[in-house]
Amino acid sequence: MSEDPARDGNGGRPGEFDLIKTYFAPLAGDPGSLGLTDDAAVLTPVPGSDLVLTKDVLAADRHFFADDPPEAIAAKALRVNLSDLAAKGASPRGYLLGLALPQDWTEDWLVRFTRGLAADQAAYDITLLGGDTICSGDGLQISITAIGEVPNGKAVRRSGAKPGDILFITGTVGDAAAGLKVLLDKSFSAESGLSLHDERHVIDRYLLPRPRMALTGALRARATAALDVSDGLIADAGHMAVASGVDLVIDLARVPVSPALRQLRANSPKAFAACLNGGDDYEILSFVPADQADGFVAEAARAGCPVTPIGRAEQGSGAVRFENADELSGHLQGPGFRHF
Amino acid sequence: MSEDPARDGNGGRPGEFDLIKTYFAPLAGDPGSLGLTDDAAVLTPVPGSDLVLTKDVLAADRHFFADDPPEAIAAKALRVNLSDLAAKGASPRGYLLGLALPQDWTEDWLVRFTRGLAADQAAYDITLLGGDTICSGDGLQISITAIGEVPNGKAVRRSGAKPGDILFITGTVGDAAAGLKVLLDKSFSAESGLSLHDERHVIDRYLLPRPRMALTGALRARATAALDVSDGLIADAGHMAVASGVDLVIDLARVPVSPALRQLRANSPKAFAACLNGGDDYEILSFVPADQADGFVAEAARAGCPVTPIGRAEQGSGAVRFENADELSGHLQGPGFRHF
Repeated sequence: MSEDPARDGNGGRPGEFDLIKTYFAPLAGDPGSLGLTDDAAVLTPVPGSDLVLTKDVLAADRHFFADDPPEAIAAKALRVNLSDLAAKGASPRGYLLGLALPQDWTEDWLVRFTRGLAADQAAYDITLLGGDTICSGDGLQISITAIGEVPNGKAVRRSGAKPGDILFITGTVGDAAAGLKVLLDKSFSAESGLSLHDERHVIDRYLLPRPRMALTGALRARATAALDVSDGLIADAGHMAVASGVDLVIDLARVPVSPALRQLRANSPKAFAACLNGGDDYEILSFVPADQADGFVAEAARAGCPVTPIGRAEQGSGAVRFENADELSGHLQGPGFRHF
Repeated sequence: MSEDPARDGNGGRPGEFDLIKTYFAPLAGDPGSLGLTDDAAVLTPVPGSDLVLTKDVLAADRHFFADDPPEAIAAKALRVNLSDLAAKGASPRGYLLGLALPQDWTEDWLVRFTRGLAADQAAYDITLLGGDTICSGDGLQISITAIGEVPNGKAVRRSGAKPGDILFITGTVGDAAAGLKVLLDKSFSAESGLSLHDERHVIDRYLLPRPRMALTGALRARATAALDVSDGLIADAGHMAVASGVDLVIDLARVPVSPALRQLRANSPKAFAACLNGGDDYEILSFVPADQADGFVAEAARAGCPVTPIGRAEQGSGAVRFENADELSGHLQGPGFRHF
């Protein structure tokens, strides 16, 4: 009874115990994972810390394409969760992986998928704590629960913005949505005047979110509210305005965009507006008190994370208004990308 | 931008924000859930405690039938995770729910599913901390990450059994596997001599695991190793023997079974043996030092959890041997139920 089950009835592919031993156990560096040999992981929290817990479920042909590179699927599944931790000011501690493989999974696919996880574990200082693998008969689904740590009471929420606070965004927005359009519509690039270089840039932004872990310290120290942009810049800004009970003014002339998106804005304001609120950016929107804004910018710069002020909170109850909408007026409706 | 998205493009069904507000937020009693209005949950661990983390993914027509009562599906998904916590000696703290709905989900189904969660939350003193809901285009899948607490260093593992320790099992084993056989094979009951009452009993055991939360205190105080039986009595006993580096002797005359399974043993030793190692029992197998065995039995009885000694650990390296196999000899091969 002590042997692992043979590769029987499984098309020559390894069974669950073999999968764990060969592919997942090497990802489980934290002693709390118990080497994935037990029913559960056992985590000793750092004294004085809170745990931040987030969970995202990704399904093939809904959140990624089934034939995307397995490394990229693994990275996306992990990174969308890491991005939530970053926005809450939390440092990654570990994650649990729920993997529902399709009937026709191959060992080569799994080698590449776990290689993608290993690369990101090293890049983001997080390891596998546990999980479950099934073969579902349906399309690939990945459910990750990520766990972060933050000093007691220091998690940054959506709800702390005050009138007068400055709204910041990291990086640039709209690229990922443009990348999805390029992938879905072969005529989009030509119609929008995107160069091959632009195309590559926006597709890469769609495939591979870059969670802004470098900003967690500055957020913890100075932000009154924050979230990561997954539903769309305006939709997510609205979520914070509602949660904080403030109105929000966004200066559209200040929203930072890539050269590709500038090109798009010039050629098709409507498509540009859709991308601006298209979601999947995984940049961080945050509110910072006005007297802390310079310090926040300096601290972010030291961390290597570009931030741009794009608006402010005002007395109100959750409305979002725009300045310098110009040719985008009338195109900025809609609730952003609906993941559901 | 502050409105929830309307019920557009969704066949008149609520969108994700409405689902959260109407169905999931009422399940989120812990303040750490932030009312499900943020990107993540924030949990303040009880000082001096470890967290126990477990994750099980369940798929329609793989771990349950798609047309099972929604309340039962909810209960099963939550309870298989609770059972892992119980076996580690952990008290439930909260859970995250990943729900991938099929395209044809109905609001009525969701009402009943969340009602099932609510009932179990009350029964097992656990609340929803967060999660994610998607509509996948595939069959229903449920991924739950459950979080338990245990005093520092007191989590019970698979690996602590010593030669001389007594092997205990809670309740009875084999019923759930018999229930699955009844559901899959219409001639099984008649061939096995099961009465209508027997049928109902075993089907109920298959549909609704009863995690043995009552035993957590006794396990923490006295067990050297424990796990819950999901793969099958003998397979899971073997896992503990391997992890602990001991041999294991199981006295098959002492393994507690229900009247339905006694009937099955009399009529079909082969089918009985298959059920005994069929899995999905969610009873707890544990090792207890011989000098603690009486105390363990008494403490379990006070907690209302029946335990039966069925074997012992011996010097060795992971082998499982049987006493009183009798007519079951030759039928006790195989690795147990393969969830994968």
